[in-house]
Amino acid sequence: MRALIEELGEICGSAQVLTKPSEMETYATDWKRSVKGNPVCVVRPASTQEVALVVRACRRYQVAIVPQGGNTGLAAGATPSPKGGDVVVSLVRLNQIRSIDPLAMTVEVEAGAILQTVKEKVETYGRLLPVGIAAEGSATIGGIVSTNAGGISVLRYGMTRALVLGLEVVLADGTIVDGLRHLRKDNSGYDWKQLFIGAEGTLGIVTAAVLRLVPRPRGSVTAFLSVPDVDAAARLFSLSQELVGDALSTFELISQTSVALVEKHVGLRSPIAAGGWYLLVEAASSLSGLEQAMETMLGKALEDGLAVDGVVAASGQQVQSIWSLREHITEAEARHGESLKHDISIPIGRMSDFLVEAGEAVTAICPQADFNIFGHLGDGNLHYNVLLNGGQEHEAVNRAVHDVVVLYRGSISAEHGIGQYRLKEWLRTKPETEQKLARAIKQVLDRDCMMNPGKLLPLNPG
Amino acid sequence: MRALIEELGEICGSAQVLTKPSEMETYATDWKRSVKGNPVCVVRPASTQEVALVVRACRRYQVAIVPQGGNTGLAAGATPSPKGGDVVVSLVRLNQIRSIDPLAMTVEVEAGAILQTVKEKVETYGRLLPVGIAAEGSATIGGIVSTNAGGISVLRYGMTRALVLGLEVVLADGTIVDGLRHLRKDNSGYDWKQLFIGAEGTLGIVTAAVLRLVPRPRGSVTAFLSVPDVDAAARLFSLSQELVGDALSTFELISQTSVALVEKHVGLRSPIAAGGWYLLVEAASSLSGLEQAMETMLGKALEDGLAVDGVVAASGQQVQSIWSLREHITEAEARHGESLKHDISIPIGRMSDFLVEAGEAVTAICPQADFNIFGHLGDGNLHYNVLLNGGQEHEAVNRAVHDVVVLYRGSISAEHGIGQYRLKEWLRTKPETEQKLARAIKQVLDRDCMMNPGKLLPLNPG
Repeated sequence: MRALIEELGEICGSAQVLTKPSEMETYATDWKRSVKGNPVCVVRPASTQEVALVVRACRRYQVAIVPQGGNTGLAAGATPSPKGGDVVVSLVRLNQIRSIDPLAMTVEVEAGAILQTVKEKVETYGRLLPVGIAAEGSATIGGIVSTNAGGISVLRYGMTRALVLGLEVVLADGTIVDGLRHLRKDNSGYDWKQLFIGAEGTLGIVTAAVLRLVPRPRGSVTAFLSVPDVDAAARLFSLSQELVGDALSTFELISQTSVALVEKHVGLRSPIAAGGWYLLVEAASSLSGLEQAMETMLGKALEDGLAVDGVVAASGQQVQSIWSLREHITEAEARHGESLKHDISIPIGRMSDFLVEAGEAVTAICPQADFNIFGHLGDGNLHYNVLLNGGQEHEAVNRAVHDVVVLYRGSISAEHGIGQYRLKEWLRTKPETEQKLARAIKQVLDRDCMMNPGKLLPLNPG
Repeated sequence: MRALIEELGEICGSAQVLTKPSEMETYATDWKRSVKGNPVCVVRPASTQEVALVVRACRRYQVAIVPQGGNTGLAAGATPSPKGGDVVVSLVRLNQIRSIDPLAMTVEVEAGAILQTVKEKVETYGRLLPVGIAAEGSATIGGIVSTNAGGISVLRYGMTRALVLGLEVVLADGTIVDGLRHLRKDNSGYDWKQLFIGAEGTLGIVTAAVLRLVPRPRGSVTAFLSVPDVDAAARLFSLSQELVGDALSTFELISQTSVALVEKHVGLRSPIAAGGWYLLVEAASSLSGLEQAMETMLGKALEDGLAVDGVVAASGQQVQSIWSLREHITEAEARHGESLKHDISIPIGRMSDFLVEAGEAVTAICPQADFNIFGHLGDGNLHYNVLLNGGQEHEAVNRAVHDVVVLYRGSISAEHGIGQYRLKEWLRTKPETEQKLARAIKQVLDRDCMMNPGKLLPLNPG
């Protein structure tokens, strides 16, 4: 390994090859601190050429590569193996915003650039990069592409995949493929870049991307409502689609328990009377008539009994305090105690039935469990977190929830990915025909399993 | 071949295996009548199971398969080989709309269903399937998925790819893969369905799809403008983004020549004074304030000299007559005489320079050429059609246009695909690293080149 470390130092400069445990710690441990890797070293190339040389060097020594961006993933997909022997390739120094074209509405940016930095930069041009995730102050462009990040704007703008126009990648053999086109339409052959989006670094390393921007809406409006049940929430979603149309950008469901946790552990207060559930609804548009449409929706919802109480935020301050409730749920959950997190999606019309059935399945195993449920109802995506309250049935609860998800033709990972965290459950629940396709894709792009082995697919995918 | 024909008859019923040249003619010739195939037979399975059995039978006899939908493609991608020996698998009998979920905004539909039929059906639920193409009365769902169809709503809603939530496919070995999930978010492993979208039937047969729907906007507004040049058109696009935002759904550029052709050969009249170019702009929203925003945009465009003349349609009749101009361009071009069609995309900010440079390149080869240029400026996609006016330099003109496209980092096929028509140019212009990736993808899913050989990739991709 000494020889490889020296070679990597020659490529990137020896200061960019970290080998001391104290220097490597933040790269070797995942965001949730659930996995601690033991890499040979962390190398930080500063250009695509350097990335390609690093890949070739590692290949010669038959050392596996773990590509890493901001290391904010929630599935330990960018964390090196506890068994050791792999090299973390950190993209953080590859962080230039290469160009912004406000007319064509594109940005070309390197993989290590921080999402928030890019968002702020394009906003000065009156454009929006519509990916909104909690970790955007640390997450990188390469990371959001490689995990196909979701977040709070998916309802309107789609997942990150919908924003990727071009990619530059370094393949497992060190080949650089330049697909950095700034085109909204390109049907000239297979769209190979799709393979690398959401591949969690297992097929190659994304080194740069061209992303689609959208016009920054001139106005936005935020409402907070309480509703009697999830069926009412779903019907209110339909009503909002009718009255506000696709100006609707956010439709978040928050359980009574979630708000109670935030009230208890963070000391915030809900501004409206409790129902069984809460909704945080946001819409944005450059057209006048936005606020009026939202008021009409709220009025009709109260009139028809779909909503118990509700408020349209009258100031930026009020918008912030509504969002603050939502944003502190995870922190409040952590203060409450141990929990099991599930990142699931279910067709929205079946959500209510799903919640009953999954709740019964969990309670049968862990009678003292509570449920901290919140998420992106408009996308059918819930964070279904089980508060264990001292229960120890981790795996059984996990399986029980996913079994009901499968029954409802949902997904066991709506937005966080498989990584290491959900690999066992992926193997257990994904149909064999689709597992076979996944192995075939891995085979063609990374036959020797050099790229992020043991993530998304088992170590020896066969 | 007799034995195969008999087997196919046993699978689908002998009435569904066409072998007479007169019966096969419409399946064997492409939409533009540029290629005439000579298939062994045309088989019309009525279920996914039958498709799988057909694929297995053809495989046993080592006979290649040409999957076909409405046969409306413009790149001869679904046309059998003139050399003969292949079997057309027509999906037209697999045409059920399996379910519509207006709340989750999804439709599950079989490959052979006609696009227009599906659009009309979902509209009765207040939903829109936002794919608008000229051939929608004949094009099928399998066809628009397999070609990643574009059209007039891409600016707002993206290509067909952006609408596909789930696919059912029959692989080259006859395996049925059921990925018919109704989920907007699903990051559970590689998104294998992306491979089949836009693959032009070369990797397997799409038998059914789940498509995303959008809320039907309550109002829409259409404007027709004349502008002095393409730079003004681009700046007007920017102004529209600012004032109308992403309510903007269509931004079509039409050359003076195009309108003159329609006036001469079809007898329609432009309702406004001529500039150098025309724009057809449409926006749709459920919010009030839409018409006002469009009027403001038009007023400002006239005031700033970006537009020469313009009108906002005051009635459905006027909307229709504006669209009629646009829709008759292809017919008028055909009446004018022979032309060479190019379906290109270019970053919008470079469009004006591109047009000058491409025009010079063409005129140097074919001095009598005229240019019938129109298309989706908002997407950077132009139909750049050269009126030959007796010139015979087909291949040289074709190459000259594409060489300038490559220089501007554009695409030689924005929306129509490669098929047979653009294969030679694809081989000539696509970088080798990307060709290699395309061959690798083909290799993993269709090693023996049974699926639509000679389309998108050469007969022996190697």
